[in-house]
Amino acid sequence: MKKGKQSVIFQKDIFINDAASYVGKRESEGNLRDYFQNVLKDDLMKEKSYELAETKMQKMTVEKLFEVSGKTANDFDCIMGGDLQNQIFATSFCAREFNIPFFGLYGACSTFGEGLCAGGLFIESGNFKKIIVVTSSHFSSAERNYRFPLELGNQRTPLSQWTVTASGAVTLSDEKYKDFAPKITAITVGKVVDFGVTDANNMGAAMAPAAADTLKTHFSDLSRSPDYYDAIFTGDLGIFGHELCTHLLSNDGITMPKTFSDCGKIIFSEKQKVFMGGSGAGCSSAVFASYLFELLRKNEIKKLLLVPTGALLNKDSPLQKQSIPGIAHAVSIEV
Amino acid sequence: MKKGKQSVIFQKDIFINDAASYVGKRESEGNLRDYFQNVLKDDLMKEKSYELAETKMQKMTVEKLFEVSGKTANDFDCIMGGDLQNQIFATSFCAREFNIPFFGLYGACSTFGEGLCAGGLFIESGNFKKIIVVTSSHFSSAERNYRFPLELGNQRTPLSQWTVTASGAVTLSDEKYKDFAPKITAITVGKVVDFGVTDANNMGAAMAPAAADTLKTHFSDLSRSPDYYDAIFTGDLGIFGHELCTHLLSNDGITMPKTFSDCGKIIFSEKQKVFMGGSGAGCSSAVFASYLFELLRKNEIKKLLLVPTGALLNKDSPLQKQSIPGIAHAVSIEV
Repeated sequence: MKKGKQSVIFQKDIFINDAASYVGKRESEGNLRDYFQNVLKDDLMKEKSYELAETKMQKMTVEKLFEVSGKTANDFDCIMGGDLQNQIFATSFCAREFNIPFFGLYGACSTFGEGLCAGGLFIESGNFKKIIVVTSSHFSSAERNYRFPLELGNQRTPLSQWTVTASGAVTLSDEKYKDFAPKITAITVGKVVDFGVTDANNMGAAMAPAAADTLKTHFSDLSRSPDYYDAIFTGDLGIFGHELCTHLLSNDGITMPKTFSDCGKIIFSEKQKVFMGGSGAGCSSAVFASYLFELLRKNEIKKLLLVPTGALLNKDSPLQKQSIPGIAHAVSIEV
Repeated sequence: MKKGKQSVIFQKDIFINDAASYVGKRESEGNLRDYFQNVLKDDLMKEKSYELAETKMQKMTVEKLFEVSGKTANDFDCIMGGDLQNQIFATSFCAREFNIPFFGLYGACSTFGEGLCAGGLFIESGNFKKIIVVTSSHFSSAERNYRFPLELGNQRTPLSQWTVTASGAVTLSDEKYKDFAPKITAITVGKVVDFGVTDANNMGAAMAPAAADTLKTHFSDLSRSPDYYDAIFTGDLGIFGHELCTHLLSNDGITMPKTFSDCGKIIFSEKQKVFMGGSGAGCSSAVFASYLFELLRKNEIKKLLLVPTGALLNKDSPLQKQSIPGIAHAVSIEV
């Protein structure tokens, strides 16, 4: 059922029965160390390039998802997802392995949210019953894809975030086949929002206006206050972007509760010195598939609003003097 | 209603009330010159880069779509689509202009088919009523993005195709608001298929196995023979790829009728010397939105199977010794 211009309350049950993630070594040493069960030994994984390593990590994540679900690729109607590589190389090559219909998505670091929205709508159509949503990012492939080759040894700026090496995946299904399976109950699909930020090293500022816009619209479309949720997590605004988002919402008269946090802000610990925190298309998916899924399982939170955020730039667009628009999709997940 | 592993017969009516396209000068001088109504004067369009020119062309296409539909952005639930630029720059920046929910897609030159499939499923869910699907490609932005800068003056190989400068867009709606509005009645969502082709200048060979796979599955899932359709158009296999696809189907016992053609094969005339024909994410969308839509309108064809095809490579993947997988989505469009 459409609510307002951007939101949908699902009439069908959209269950998340399974979740799986892989993270890199650095990610496994951060704040969420107790929650990441599958850790890469090294970030090249015996592959000849970081791009191929990311592809392998994403494939391992989907295989882990099959393991925890007790299902095979053939049980699913499609696989959908994306990553940050040019032409979503990692996801296309991962999907190649599974011989089922594929929808390639691109929404930068918001792609996991885009996949949950699209997957939910596909199941609501009654035509698809089981869907895999997967995203990934890799620090080393992202650095040379968006900024500079690592070999150049560039300094990082104070407001920069660290692209996480991580992949997260979930299954969406119209049936509950596990003892524990939270439901996607509502979504708010984001618009492209551009506040004119031009600093490609300050993704938080570029994405915060989009996150604030989507959150504000979500509360308004669904006539909910932020207190409806036990926890609200944006994707990867990082420390600065999260503060900015809180400030923008406050300007609009929306006071965010203490339970408002951000996957990128919490993934690394302060002593890891990654400045503003983590980012990347694998950030919100891996944090959801491990930490947040576990909090839901333990009943520590029952109502979660997950808002993956993305910065819509490429390597050339800031060099061509273009600003960096953002996008964010809100997904309401309830036990 | 799901049919087989990959196909869906829509229970709801999914109408295509409106279609619009823009093409470059070269495209307007080819075989379809009488069908392309909106032609760019030059391919830089007073912008400072080809990437920005493509963005402008895509925006003009969507604005033309509003003009022919008599609607505004606000009448639509979302805009979805993609292009060939890194991180679908053109589509993200085009969507920025319209302030409505956005789904970024990436399926290379198959993206138009992916959009029609996803858009159809969204409408079938009952939550979305009106959707814009748009794709584009630009010869000059694609050349430097995938191969070499134009300034290098590289020779083209005999099996290469010419990425079209074109953008095509349609509206999908659950209601018929025009006198003429064909319907999307069924889809077959493609899998990633890889026959090990490694020549980045022979896209036709890379995509033909995927097109053959999707066509074969479509006929089998829906228990239809190729003769069910008045015309079957693959996306942009080009002359060689189209021949290869016909051959692969023939090996599987499927004889394709004379009405089997390809958007990339027909868009340019032989004397334009573009070797194997056209390609690009704007190829099938612009050919559909002008030529094929007009044939449907004139009742020259009543049942069309459109099969946009994509090659899932990026600039680096062939250099990293990776083969080029393909994907193709079949969309059944009937008057």
